[in-house]
This record gives sequence, C-alpha cells and structure tokens, in this order.
Amino acid sequence: MLIRKYHIAIVGATGLVGQEFIKVLEKRDFPLASVHLFASNKSAGKKLFINHREAELKELTRNSFDPVDIALFAAGSEVSQHFIPRAVKRGAVAIDCSGVFGMDDVVPLVVPEVNPQDLENHQGLIASPNCTTIQLVVALNQLHRVSPIKRIVVDTYQAVSGTGSTGVDELNTQTKLVLEGKSGAPHVYPHQIAFNVLPEVDVFWDDGYTKEEWKLSEETRKIFHDDTIAISATCVRVPVIVGNSEAIHVEFSKPISPEDARTILASAPGVKLLDDPSVSLYPYPWSAVGSDDVLVGRIRRDVSHPNGLVMWVVADNLRKGVALNAIQIAEQLISKGLV
Amino acid sequence: MLIRKYHIAIVGATGLVGQEFIKVLEKRDFPLASVHLFASNKSAGKKLFINHREAELKELTRNSFDPVDIALFAAGSEVSQHFIPRAVKRGAVAIDCSGVFGMDDVVPLVVPEVNPQDLENHQGLIASPNCTTIQLVVALNQLHRVSPIKRIVVDTYQAVSGTGSTGVDELNTQTKLVLEGKSGAPHVYPHQIAFNVLPEVDVFWDDGYTKEEWKLSEETRKIFHDDTIAISATCVRVPVIVGNSEAIHVEFSKPISPEDARTILASAPGVKLLDDPSVSLYPYPWSAVGSDDVLVGRIRRDVSHPNGLVMWVVADNLRKGVALNAIQIAEQLISKGLV
Repeated sequence: MLIRKYHIAIVGATGLVGQEFIKVLEKRDFPLASVHLFASNKSAGKKLFINHREAELKELTRNSFDPVDIALFAAGSEVSQHFIPRAVKRGAVAIDCSGVFGMDDVVPLVVPEVNPQDLENHQGLIASPNCTTIQLVVALNQLHRVSPIKRIVVDTYQAVSGTGSTGVDELNTQTKLVLEGKSGAPHVYPHQIAFNVLPEVDVFWDDGYTKEEWKLSEETRKIFHDDTIAISATCVRVPVIVGNSEAIHVEFSKPISPEDARTILASAPGVKLLDDPSVSLYPYPWSAVGSDDVLVGRIRRDVSHPNGLVMWVVADNLRKGVALNAIQIAEQLISKGLV
Repeated sequence: MLIRKYHIAIVGATGLVGQEFIKVLEKRDFPLASVHLFASNKSAGKKLFINHREAELKELTRNSFDPVDIALFAAGSEVSQHFIPRAVKRGAVAIDCSGVFGMDDVVPLVVPEVNPQDLENHQGLIASPNCTTIQLVVALNQLHRVSPIKRIVVDTYQAVSGTGSTGVDELNTQTKLVLEGKSGAPHVYPHQIAFNVLPEVDVFWDDGYTKEEWKLSEETRKIFHDDTIAISATCVRVPVIVGNSEAIHVEFSKPISPEDARTILASAPGVKLLDDPSVSLYPYPWSAVGSDDVLVGRIRRDVSHPNGLVMWVVADNLRKGVALNAIQIAEQLISKGLV
C-alpha cells in the first residue's frame, strides 16, 4: 500500500518556533512529501537542513501555497491574518499558532489529547491555543472528565522564549551586564527581566487583566466546551529561557483525592507524572526542555477547598506549547482524512 | 527630658539579615545605647561599622545577654532555640526571626502594622513572621477589616537571598556557568536555580505541602486572629536575588471593588500602591530592593469569584520581610513601654 505523503509549509521558519517545527517534524517520522520554508524577505535565499536535505527559505507570495497541503503559521498575527485566507483559498489547510483566530466561533481550537473531535468540521483553518492554555488543559482534561471543573486559579511562570529570540537575547544580555555590576536597559520587556519577574505578558485590557490571562481563560472554556468554568489567572514572565510553569488550584464538582488524581494522570495522554516530594521529584523548566509531555507534580489536596486539588504543571513552551501541538493537529487531520 | 536609649544585640550579624539589621538601625534613628554583634566563632574578633563606629563581632556565651535590652535573632532555628531562653532569663526581650517559635501559643507573632496589640502580654519573646506572611498580611489587613477574608489562594516568586548568602552565591555561580555553556551542579538547592524555577521552599510535609506553605497559612490566621480563613499556597523559588513577589487571589465576605481597594490601600500603613497598567506601573522585585514598603499593584476584580480580588504584591524579603519588621517590633515595644 502506498502511504500518502504531504506537502508542508512552515511560515516563520527562522524563528524559535519555526526551528522547533523542523526538529519535531524530523523526530516524528511525519509523512513528508516536501517542506516549504517561508520567512521574512531578509532571510529569503538562505538555506536550512531538514532530515539532512537542504531547503531554501523563501518569501511569501500570493502563489506560495499552490503546492501545499498543510501550512503551519508561526510568524505573528499580521502574517497569519494576511496569508491564511490566501492559503485556504488555494486549498491548503492552515494551522495557526499566532493566537489571532483562536476565539473565532467557526475556527476549531484544538489540543489533540483533549478535543480532536473539533477538527471534524474545520473550514480550512485550525487554531493551536496559547502555550499556557495547552499545558493547563492537557494536565486537567482527564480529571475534568471524572469530576467536572468548576473553577481554576492559576499563576504562571513563563519563559522569555515565548516572546521569541529577542526575548532570549534580552535575558542573556541583561544577565551578563548585571553580573558585571552594570544594569541592562529594557528593550523587549517594559522593565529589566534579568534577576527579576514581571507580571505583564502581552497587552493590558481595560479590566486590568492582560490579553494572555484573558486568552488562558477563554481558550480553556472553548476547548473544554464548558462556558461555566470560572478562571482567574495572573501571568508572569520569569528569567527562564525555555519552559513554562503553572501553579494550579482547581475546584471540582466532587472531591478527587490526590491518590486518585495520580492514578488518572499516570495514564492520561500527553501527561508525564513526576511526583515524589520525598526525593525532590517534581517538574521544573530546566528539565522540561525538549520533552513532548506535559509534566505534572506536587499534586495535593487543596486545604482551602473541600473539592480542590493543587498541582504544579510544566511544559516546553516552544514544543508542546506551540510546534508539537500544531504538528499533532496535522497528524490528526491526516489520520481522520480531513486534509 | 532624657530619652532612654537601648542596648541591642544582633545575633547572626554577618548574615544577609544581620547586615540588613545594621542598615535599618542606622537609617531609622533608633534610640541606640550600644550594639552587641554576635556571629559564629569563625567570625569572632572581626569588626563592623555601625553609624561610623566600630563594633567587634563576638561569639555567643552564657553571659552575652547581661547588658542587653533587646536581642534580635537571625542566626537560624538552632541558635534561637538554644540562646533565646538564656537571653530572656537574663532580662532581655528577644525578637526571633528564625520561624521556630512563631506558632507557639504563648509567643506573640507580630507585624506592627497589623497586630501591635499582641505585644501587650509578651513573656520576653516575640516572633517575627516569615517574609512571605509579612507582605501578605500588610497588603490585606485594611481590606480584611472592611470585608473579612474567607479564602486566600497565593503563589509565590521567592528570591534566593531568603536562603542566605549561600543561595545568592549559588545563583551567581550557576548563572555564570550557564552563560558559558556549562552546567552548574546544585549544592544549596535540590536542582539548578539559574534560569529555572523550583516549587520547593523549605522541607516537605507528608501532606505534600512544604513547611513554607504551611507557615504562610498558619501565620496568617494567627496574625489575623481568625482560624476560619482558608488558605492555599504554592511557594516557588525563582532566580531573583532580592525581592519576593506574590500573586494573590482573595475571597472576601462581601465584594470590594478594585477602586475601593485602591482607595483603602492608598492610606494603608506600610503599603505603597503602584498600580497603573497603562504605563506598565506595577511592583517587581528589582525595584523593591531597599524599600520599606509592601508594594501592591495589578489590583483587579477576580472574574472567577463574585467577592474576589486579584493583586500582585512585592516586598524586599530581607528588609520588611525580616530585619525591618523585627526592628519595628522593637520600636513598638519601646513606645508601649514593654521593654
């Protein structure tokens, strides 16, 4: 039997997420017919290697998507808004990681471990959620099915790579300066990020929440198909390069014991349990880099709520947080015959 | 009129907190008759300056407290347990920052802005709470008086200086190594702290909480004299040198609007409001270093609870978190004629 192979486009191929797309595609034995790499015009003409084969970076044009089956978008909201309609019109299925279409009613917002069924009625465009949302819903999904979630309080510890390579450069540069006794002027972030934490991720709304906090709440409700889940979040940037952490306090309809939660999560898709405080075993960002799994630890009863659990959830924000999730969406589309 | 002056002892004078004691005493025009500095025997004989006058570091002995009115203890729980009974027996009033006596029923646990009345019946020993507790209760006290608190969910972002100078050294050393492409073996913390966050502060209890999380909860209830307040905390060490941050989600008996909360906190003792998201004005640890105040920002309605507020609270963990609070206790004892 001939296995069908697919023509894939990566839009934003030179960014941190673009690079992660390439790593994940190489690792997963994806049925690739060809890869088309797109980047800003200043990178056009340069070459990258995928599976030891050279591929040239090209600038996006009106006809770029003619030979493409699946287009992965990670070049920011403006590029997505401009080129996704064109890609879809040319017959490609677009998977967007820019966040700009996630709350559009006709666009499925999908985490394959949680709501793959939402892919069925796609209209050429699927949104991959924000990184903070993905690790939250993967960690909570199987628990939510056992005892529906009423409320989530979550505070995040987010890596600078979520901002892209400029965020990583700023942290590195400022850190060196501070170690030399100098101070590093902020460019990418509103204040110094080296040896500091900033409770500002993305722009502020009028109600005092940031767009990041709002997305985390709205996206979680959409993915769980449950508008009644109450969510309160504070999103915080920390001086970590890769790996987002979340302190999560969940209130369920009925109590779940920590033991039951561990049993459920031990076999939950996409979850890896790392939970033995007696030997300081819990996830942390430095150990999460390169992991496909959402790592869960520090599961304990919420002593402040009869139906509550508290946990600590960490994931590679570039991998499962963006690139891997998008490629898993592509794999689901293929296996369901939806592309 | 002659103003009475006091003989003060600092136990643990060479540590980060001991040094902060000296800075705060110098700054506050404390009515000092003399300062007696005590440190481990390896430091004995060395000299420090206080108000431009030399003072010699001495080793603690049975008779060390004979000339002392007020003894400030910041040398760890073993030193406090051994020497505080001796100091009290010799007629000194001990103010302990080690955390070891905080939950003892006969020991007042005091934050001067919140429960100075608890000093009245002291028996020679007053405990200063843990740094994370102090900034929490200072930020919440005036709101709690308007609308009693039912529940607090709090996640922390704690600086390495809370561990002492060994924590600061470990962060600096590991950071340099990581920037050179090497990795730094952990000694003080169970895992690398550079470019990482660790959900482990102090030891783990059997229920999965850490002693730090337990203290934050128990101390808050004791200081507020309200056993009914439910508290859930995750305490996290972050690669910050000085300055602890807390994401706080509070549920009150009756709703308080963010506007009312800002009005109340604008005149709350020990609080400084820094809250204008439109210009990225909020507290962060790098800007909190050296501040006497507990800094509060990002006040907003908790969209997940009808009576809830969310806020972001930062304080210098060495200053208001330990040294300043202890010296404010001493000042209260003096002004109330309790020493």
